[in-house]
Amino acid sequence: MSTPELGLPMVVPAQGLPARVRIHEVGARDGLQNEKATVPTEVKAEFIRRLAGAGLTTIEATSFVHPRWVPQLADSEQLFPLVSDLGGDGGAPGVRLPVLVPNERGLDRALALGARHVAVFASATESFAKANLNRTVDESLAMFEPVVSRARADRAHVRGYVSMCFGDPWEGAVPVHQVVRVCKALLDMGCDELSLGDTIGVATPGHVQNLLAELNEEGVPTDVLGVHFHDTYGQALANTLASLQHGVTTVDASAGGLGGCPYAKSATGNLATEDLVWMLQGLGVDTGVDLGRLTATSVWMAGQLGRPSPSRTVKALSHQE
Amino acid sequence: MSTPELGLPMVVPAQGLPARVRIHEVGARDGLQNEKATVPTEVKAEFIRRLAGAGLTTIEATSFVHPRWVPQLADSEQLFPLVSDLGGDGGAPGVRLPVLVPNERGLDRALALGARHVAVFASATESFAKANLNRTVDESLAMFEPVVSRARADRAHVRGYVSMCFGDPWEGAVPVHQVVRVCKALLDMGCDELSLGDTIGVATPGHVQNLLAELNEEGVPTDVLGVHFHDTYGQALANTLASLQHGVTTVDASAGGLGGCPYAKSATGNLATEDLVWMLQGLGVDTGVDLGRLTATSVWMAGQLGRPSPSRTVKALSHQE
Repeated sequence: MSTPELGLPMVVPAQGLPARVRIHEVGARDGLQNEKATVPTEVKAEFIRRLAGAGLTTIEATSFVHPRWVPQLADSEQLFPLVSDLGGDGGAPGVRLPVLVPNERGLDRALALGARHVAVFASATESFAKANLNRTVDESLAMFEPVVSRARADRAHVRGYVSMCFGDPWEGAVPVHQVVRVCKALLDMGCDELSLGDTIGVATPGHVQNLLAELNEEGVPTDVLGVHFHDTYGQALANTLASLQHGVTTVDASAGGLGGCPYAKSATGNLATEDLVWMLQGLGVDTGVDLGRLTATSVWMAGQLGRPSPSRTVKALSHQE
Repeated sequence: MSTPELGLPMVVPAQGLPARVRIHEVGARDGLQNEKATVPTEVKAEFIRRLAGAGLTTIEATSFVHPRWVPQLADSEQLFPLVSDLGGDGGAPGVRLPVLVPNERGLDRALALGARHVAVFASATESFAKANLNRTVDESLAMFEPVVSRARADRAHVRGYVSMCFGDPWEGAVPVHQVVRVCKALLDMGCDELSLGDTIGVATPGHVQNLLAELNEEGVPTDVLGVHFHDTYGQALANTLASLQHGVTTVDASAGGLGGCPYAKSATGNLATEDLVWMLQGLGVDTGVDLGRLTATSVWMAGQLGRPSPSRTVKALSHQE
């Protein structure tokens, strides 16, 4: 039996879901940062432009981390000016182009180039804070505090990533109260939104809904919460559905499933934006994304990287072998 | 960051889900039937034994189709006696070993070998009925009628597969009333349960819940309904979650994601049993399956077939490159 391109799912809404979801596209930053071979700056800029052309309105562009930490993103000062015309200022129309800023030095560089959306990257666990930032959780929060307050003073929008919200490779299951504590600290210092990360992909839908409910009970409203699932165990889209049912309207995803290699030992594959859009489009949830253009972008990027996209929707729509 | 084997998800139940799900394992039949290289009968028998050893209680064993149609399953008369000791009779303890019977001749062969669970394979669309059975939908139902009634007279349990319940590669979106009509016809002729197949993987959660609700409205109770999702667009587990939320307690899956090649043009990958078990275990839904033993079985079978399992959970737990 052959399977011709159907292109789009049938639209049948489900009860209790949001009318619209904002996709926070992380492919250009989170996706590319693990690529070993250096991707030329012009290719990154073209990737971001194509993502915007496909209708994505929040495209994380790069990271102003020290080049030694993430060599792939060492060109952020060259890249950002190539795409910053896409970004609207504050409430104005246009595309949001958030950039990661690990510390005040990174913030200075981002603001100097006109970034209006920045993000800090915290951890819910001590082990990952130590591994990723060489600090305790509290030391890293103290490091972020002036970053957030200065960004806010400059009227930039601040996202706080919270990684290892469900499981941690060293510590196992992560107690909800640890996640709540870090989330509240980030909001207290002025973050506008949070992204709850299942960095190792172990979460299941009940765990997700439980964390969201606990955060609500502790005074954190759902509308500041985004979710960031990894597909390591194939759970990302089911967890996303559970989040939507709880009222979440911001979902992180990576075009073509870029990020980590799903075939390698420490598989950390991000949820593929195309698989997410297929589901949302079928559910009648508006994203503004053109699935055909997005898939074409991921196929083009896969060509640049020299290997196929792990996204099932990209495979199915592109007949990518 | 390395990702040591965590092995199992944290258990956090979600509201409104069944306490127990029966997994209908299709790897040995639906999974293997598309394999080009002939799998030795002894390997198939060992696969089924290992699946039973991992705790699966419903293992579709083979098909009594004419050998010309599905050469891979031409050994069903040799295979079934090698594993039939696993199968309990009717309500007795043991493993269910359903076999596909396309017609009365196939039923005769299956019953002669002591099969107690049989299945017929219908289509919701004319195009697939024509392509798969060279008959109209009504002609194929007429062919199944004596198969089902004679199986029932012999006190065998009968499952009715309904393929193309959501989309069809020739006809596009499939109207719900077509699916309802075929389901009711199969139940009227005596089928004990149905399996609703998303054969090309295009369904999304609202579409799934809508079909289930329409079937209920037409007098078909949820407890005779199983679901059979394909992961062609990455939707299988989200659709399964939506089905569980509707009360479905029978879910088809294929060990290691066997069935169709997820990397080939007409990707038809079945939902991987391991990805399903990870979610159900995390949700605290009892399946009786030992995820470690199941994963080991799929890794072993991948070795027999000479290529890695497409299941993300198998990849993650086995560090399969």
